[in-house]
Amino acid sequence: MPAMRRALVVALIGLTSVVLDARMPRAVSLILTGGTVITIDAARRVIPHGAVAIDGTDIVAVDTAEAVAAGYTGREVVDTTDDIVLPGLVNTHGHAPMVLYRGLADDLALMDWLQRYIFPAEAKTVSPEMVRVGTKLAALEMIQSGTTTFTDMYYFEEEIAQTARDAGLRGVLGETIIKFPVADAKTPADALKRAEAYIAEFRHDPLITPAVAPHSAYTLERDTLLACRDLALKYDVPLLIHLAETQDEVRIIQESSHLTPTGYLESIGFWTPRVVAAHGVWVNDDDIAILKRQGVGVSHNPESNMKLASGVAPVPKYLAAGVKLGLGTDGAASNNDLDMFEAMRQAAFLHKLETHDPRALPAPQALELATMGGARVLGLQDAIGSLEAGKRADLIVVGTNRARQTPLYDPISQLVYATHGDDVKTTIVNGRVLMRDRKVATLDERAVLADARRMSGQVRQAVKPQ
Amino acid sequence: MPAMRRALVVALIGLTSVVLDARMPRAVSLILTGGTVITIDAARRVIPHGAVAIDGTDIVAVDTAEAVAAGYTGREVVDTTDDIVLPGLVNTHGHAPMVLYRGLADDLALMDWLQRYIFPAEAKTVSPEMVRVGTKLAALEMIQSGTTTFTDMYYFEEEIAQTARDAGLRGVLGETIIKFPVADAKTPADALKRAEAYIAEFRHDPLITPAVAPHSAYTLERDTLLACRDLALKYDVPLLIHLAETQDEVRIIQESSHLTPTGYLESIGFWTPRVVAAHGVWVNDDDIAILKRQGVGVSHNPESNMKLASGVAPVPKYLAAGVKLGLGTDGAASNNDLDMFEAMRQAAFLHKLETHDPRALPAPQALELATMGGARVLGLQDAIGSLEAGKRADLIVVGTNRARQTPLYDPISQLVYATHGDDVKTTIVNGRVLMRDRKVATLDERAVLADARRMSGQVRQAVKPQ
Repeated sequence: MPAMRRALVVALIGLTSVVLDARMPRAVSLILTGGTVITIDAARRVIPHGAVAIDGTDIVAVDTAEAVAAGYTGREVVDTTDDIVLPGLVNTHGHAPMVLYRGLADDLALMDWLQRYIFPAEAKTVSPEMVRVGTKLAALEMIQSGTTTFTDMYYFEEEIAQTARDAGLRGVLGETIIKFPVADAKTPADALKRAEAYIAEFRHDPLITPAVAPHSAYTLERDTLLACRDLALKYDVPLLIHLAETQDEVRIIQESSHLTPTGYLESIGFWTPRVVAAHGVWVNDDDIAILKRQGVGVSHNPESNMKLASGVAPVPKYLAAGVKLGLGTDGAASNNDLDMFEAMRQAAFLHKLETHDPRALPAPQALELATMGGARVLGLQDAIGSLEAGKRADLIVVGTNRARQTPLYDPISQLVYATHGDDVKTTIVNGRVLMRDRKVATLDERAVLADARRMSGQVRQAVKPQ
Repeated sequence: MPAMRRALVVALIGLTSVVLDARMPRAVSLILTGGTVITIDAARRVIPHGAVAIDGTDIVAVDTAEAVAAGYTGREVVDTTDDIVLPGLVNTHGHAPMVLYRGLADDLALMDWLQRYIFPAEAKTVSPEMVRVGTKLAALEMIQSGTTTFTDMYYFEEEIAQTARDAGLRGVLGETIIKFPVADAKTPADALKRAEAYIAEFRHDPLITPAVAPHSAYTLERDTLLACRDLALKYDVPLLIHLAETQDEVRIIQESSHLTPTGYLESIGFWTPRVVAAHGVWVNDDDIAILKRQGVGVSHNPESNMKLASGVAPVPKYLAAGVKLGLGTDGAASNNDLDMFEAMRQAAFLHKLETHDPRALPAPQALELATMGGARVLGLQDAIGSLEAGKRADLIVVGTNRARQTPLYDPISQLVYATHGDDVKTTIVNGRVLMRDRKVATLDERAVLADARRMSGQVRQAVKPQ
């Protein structure tokens, strides 16, 4: 066919499809319709009678219910009337398998807690099976409480990644490097080898972002910290680290380097924009300037910082400086749950108290930290964190019909100040419905709980006084 | 019958009944059996496979399941295997109908919040109907979250008392006296008259303890404060007051009297051991000594104090001084819920942070504050606050089977750090089952929520910018 005719035919086909588009709604896999849609998009749209159209793994439209109905038909349609539809919550710091140590030993001095309970329990119980059982329990709890992306620093991270992938969760999951012998590596060099093999295995996974997780500046030598950075740069993956969590940590680093932890890590050239620094409690204004300049993301963990009496991260200063900031729960041993709704509420409460100003960290900002803020911290801002066409379909549906949630004047206030994870009805990740009306589809709840209880017997045994 | 023979017959009857007692289990109205029973008795017994026998309004036995089975048969028996059975929670401060203002206006400066939202809403919407609708909603939420006794300071308190009684809740409910004209009284003198009539009506009620609620030292004249005290003394009822909640309050009292609020109230002879002082945030060591010496009870409201940025009450100092101390939620407009499990968790978190010591306010102490501590504050320590034979049967059954609560190493840690009000399955007050397996028996949930939503329309209208 001559070029001219071919061009004409192509143009006609194009025109026909435009006409068809205008008349025939596009068939998509799933539409959620009728609820209040909180987008967290650039305009911070809140659509009272809204809808989200999903096709495959992606969001294709976010608009009024009427507009979506005019443009799309869903092979499946979920009625979200009276519900709130929002981006899935992004947990930027934790240790998923530690749910198995939840409530094992509370209200202790930090060293007692670590040396008498957590370290012995870890030495005797961390295994591939333990991290699978623990991650399944954590995944169940996260899916049930509306977390769609979680961040992890633990051992046998490839098992955690496999388990999270099977459960359908999105994860930024880092293999821990630490200078002591641990369950999956005798030396940091061994751990780095494991980390590289793990990264190679998962680097193209649609759900799992593998990462390198050097434990902290005070539990690693300079060369290992830099080797971790190099490994992360080589594969362009995130680097997860604990930073300035306690005053003791600051003191230790000061004694050896005469610098703050943040300053020390800058002095050795550790920082890159892929770093996620957890806690960031004990930082001064210079440290905050370093974190901003280096593009480091910070994970704020208000509940863990309160329960362990670590201190208060200067969240208003981070926000004023434009540091990328998200929220985290930390491990369940120091929280004691993985509920990001509580992290939002606690962040809002804590910074009002700390600044003596009830206007500090208002509900919309707390919700932003738990969604887009977390996405930016993890480098996933183009894929998740808001409900926008073209992003992955990671979203949750929250019921609003309990006495505790009545009346409803402002959906964002209600989410932050009166909603629990238990109010989440439906959880969707990458377009897949992981939970529908509180029934988790990707995990056998009864078996997960039974396995966790069985494993808790071993944990109890491990910490028994001799 | 001669005295000797009569004595012999009496002795024989006595002996027979002892013998019968040993052989025939006593029939009682209700037995809860198989769960972990947390008694909060003097020995702080925790009975792993325990039971509670209830007859009519009273607890008749608290023991192992086997011992109770040997001594009692229940006309009704509830299997509490895998559950935790504990005293109902005691909320020592709040404003029940303010649930209707929940989430109406968050994240505002205190004066903005009060003057633009709460005062206009109260001026235009407080009515007998409004307090009935609000109290029903609050009662529903409290029954659903395991509160069995609540404390209240509001208007039309007789309506609140009637509604609480119908819902089956125990309450210490105070008619508010304040120097401004309010919905139910043009002057403090009017309010005092209303208070006296209300006290006369309810003073012999088995569930309701009527009280006088002078709002605070800074919103009442000296003579009215003393008239409130006299009225409370006349009927031997509690006196409920806000105390030293904000720095502004301290400043106002200092300016007029050169004393702290606590010192000022001592100087005028206000304090009696029946006073319940809410908040007690801004107190010095002398103030604490006064409160101890005068036998005043203090209600600590950690969530409200954080959300409104009021400050941190010196809870460890109160405890060290032996001041009677309980926990409260405050009204839902400044919390935003009535969940006493959150009050416990927040109290524990807040004082660990404040004292820089993770050992501060451990879980058993937080639970004690929410039960026996609250009972002592309200002067009800002989009737409620612990599970002991001879006390009223106010108790709750908490499920432990969620992912969030798994595994379970320590039931008290789990209650404080991982349990929500939503985990309460059964709520019993004065021997009456108010909720069974999450179904509330004494309120029509659907109607209560519908009425609250209808009323919220009026509230929204009341605060609309003109």
